[in-house]
Formats: sequence, structure tokens, C-alpha cells
Amino acid sequence: MKKTILALLLIFGFATTVFADEHAVSEGVVVQANGKDAADFKRALILASNMHEVLTKAKFEVVVYGPSVKLLTAFSNEVPLIQKVQGEGIKIIACGRSLKSEHLNDSNLAPDITVVPFGAVHIVNRQKQGWQYIKP
Amino acid sequence: MKKTILALLLIFGFATTVFADEHAVSEGVVVQANGKDAADFKRALILASNMHEVLTKAKFEVVVYGPSVKLLTAFSNEVPLIQKVQGEGIKIIACGRSLKSEHLNDSNLAPDITVVPFGAVHIVNRQKQGWQYIKP
Amino acid sequence: MKKTILALLLIFGFATTVFADEHAVSEGVVVQANGKDAADFKRALILASNMHEVLTKAKFEVVVYGPSVKLLTAFSNEVPLIQKVQGEGIKIIACGRSLKSEHLNDSNLAPDITVVPFGAVHIVNRQKQGWQYIKP
Repeated sequence: MKKTILALLLIFGFATTVFADEHAVSEGVVVQANGKDAADFKRALILASNMHEVLTKAKFEVVVYGPSVKLLTAFSNEVPLIQKVQGEGIKIIACGRSLKSEHLNDSNLAPDITVVPFGAVHIVNRQKQGWQYIKP
Repeated sequence: MKKTILALLLIFGFATTVFADEHAVSEGVVVQANGKDAADFKRALILASNMHEVLTKAKFEVVVYGPSVKLLTAFSNEVPLIQKVQGEGIKIIACGRSLKSEHLNDSNLAPDITVVPFGAVHIVNRQKQGWQYIKP
Repeated sequence: MKKTILALLLIFGFATTVFADEHAVSEGVVVQANGKDAADFKRALILASNMHEVLTKAKFEVVVYGPSVKLLTAFSNEVPLIQKVQGEGIKIIACGRSLKSEHLNDSNLAPDITVVPFGAVHIVNRQKQGWQYIKP
């Protein structure tokens, strides 16, 4: 009898671990920013900023990929907006592959931009972790 | 021994509650409609309508945000399509923030349009509830 | 007492079944390709190909719907790219409804294109199965 209980507890121990994992998913929203121009880029950042005002507990990341990564350089006209949004706790992420395609590297970027190896892969990985995805 | 069983039952009671919650997620599809023109708007509504024909058990919501909310007014050319789609049980939702940006309010809208405070936030909240997301 | 244990085991048996199901979700990424031109189509296929290089264990499907299904015909200029991507293990899927709209049928398609009845429904079904979704 004791063995049965023990077995149950063991199996159950495993079960609760699964539960724990499930609830450990970090809450977050990943916003895709791969638009065709600066207006699309601004729209994505402003959307993230406005959403963050409402969803105060969620982490926010804006993943910039494609030619738009040029807008993340230190001399970009968008630096003031980037810094405002970063100041609110939103992470601005540049796709490493897109930077390479645009002949840019980390040292060309505005301060505090995070570089990931591959923006679209980062987006699906966040979804796997339970984040929500929006393409504005 | 009884205590052990009781403890197991208690823990298990919690576990099944979690299960119950998990299965209580309402099945639904949230369609994003923030296109650049009336053609994009129509395409989103027709897509939702066609999908709903196949996925008969799922709830459907079309979330309209951005300048497209103008197409939801009582005098919009799109009212016939809106009413057809609503008649099929699909909910048409307007973003309250976008209405404000377009100097519109609830009283300007076609009948039975639901207004949410923030369309994009509604979209990620639906995803959190287990709904599927599509941007046509 | 034995009955209690039995009951627990029975309930638990149900619980573990749920777990098993949960972990049976196939890992995959569904890429939506309903762009406006051949450049959008190519971009979607190349993105899937590049992501697949990194996420080697995930299944990849590119779901083509809308007028872009014309690019999947046997005489399309895109056949070399389609075949390269298919050779990497990525499934190229055509929307049956879109084919019909374009007055095309299965026999017009390049080899090994899978046809599903409704592309957008396929996309939300994959999400339900735990796949990640990206619209490039």
C-alpha cells in the first residue's frame, strides 16, 4: 500500500513540476516591426508604448527586422522616439542578420539596442515561451 | 494514512482545477483588420466569414483599428457587408482609441458594433485566452 | 481504502492522458505567404528557409493564399526557389479556395505542393496544435 502511495506521489511530483513550468511562462508581448518605411516603424513603437501603458505587468519587445534596422542607428531621426520607448521599459531588438544585410554592426546602433542573431526566430521563440505576438 | 490520501486529494483538487481552467479556454479566432483601405477591410471581413463557415464551433471577432474604423460608421458603404457578417454570428469590434483619433464616438457607429478601449490590447488578451490570431 | 486509491488512480490516469496530449503537440512554425507580389512570396520562402536552418527540429510550413497561389504553378518563375526550399524539408502549401479563385487546380501546380481546402483555416489549426505563427 505504501508503495502505491509512493508511486502516486512520485508521478504526482512529476505532474506538479509540469504545472510549475507551465505557470513559469513569462508574460510578454512581442511586436514585429519589419515595415516598409519610417512611418511603419514609428507606428510599431508607438503601439508598443501605448499597449504597455495598459498592460503594465507584461514585458514588451519590439523586434525590428528587414531594411528597417537602418532606423536603429545612432544617427537615425528615430533616436528620440527609440529612447522615449526604451525609457518606458520596452526593449528594442535588432535582427543581427538584417544588420549584416544592411552592412551595419552593433557599434553603429543607438544606445541600449539589443541584438539577437535572428529576429524572426526570436519572435517564434517568444511565442513558444507563452508571449503574445502582434504584427501591427 | 488517511491524512496522506486527504493531502493527495487536496493537491489533486487543485490540479484538476487547473485542468478545468485549461479546458475552459473559449475557442475563438481573432482577425486583425487594420489595413490601409476599404479593400483590405472587406478582405478581412470576408475571410472571417468564410473561415466561420468551416470552423463552425469557434467564436469569431474582427478587431478593426487604425483609420479603418471610419468604415464602421452608420453611413459607411460597408454597412451591408458588416451586417451580413454580423448576421452570421461574427462580432465586429472597433478600437476606442482609433475612434478617438478619427474624431468619432460610439453614436456614429453602425448597429451592434462592439467598442473596446484598445483594439491591439484586445487582440493579445484573446491570444492569452487561447484564441488563435490571424492578420490577413 | 483500495477504492479510494483506485479512484485516485483513475482520475490520475485521466490527468496523465491530458499531459501526454499536451506534450504530443508537434513543434512547428507556420509562415503565412499572402503578399501582393512575387517579391513578397520570395521573401516568405527565404525567411522560412533561413529560420529552418536555425530551428532544425521544428517542422516548417509556408501557407500560400490569395493571388500568390499563381506563383505555385508548374511554369512559375519561382519553381527553382520552391524546389530548393522543399528540398530542405519545408512544406509548401496552397490554399484550395485561392486556387479556385484563380481558376487553377492541383494538376497545374509544381511538384510536391500540398493543397489544403482553406489556407487561413490551416494556419489557425496549426496554432491550435501549438505551432508558432509568423506573417513576414
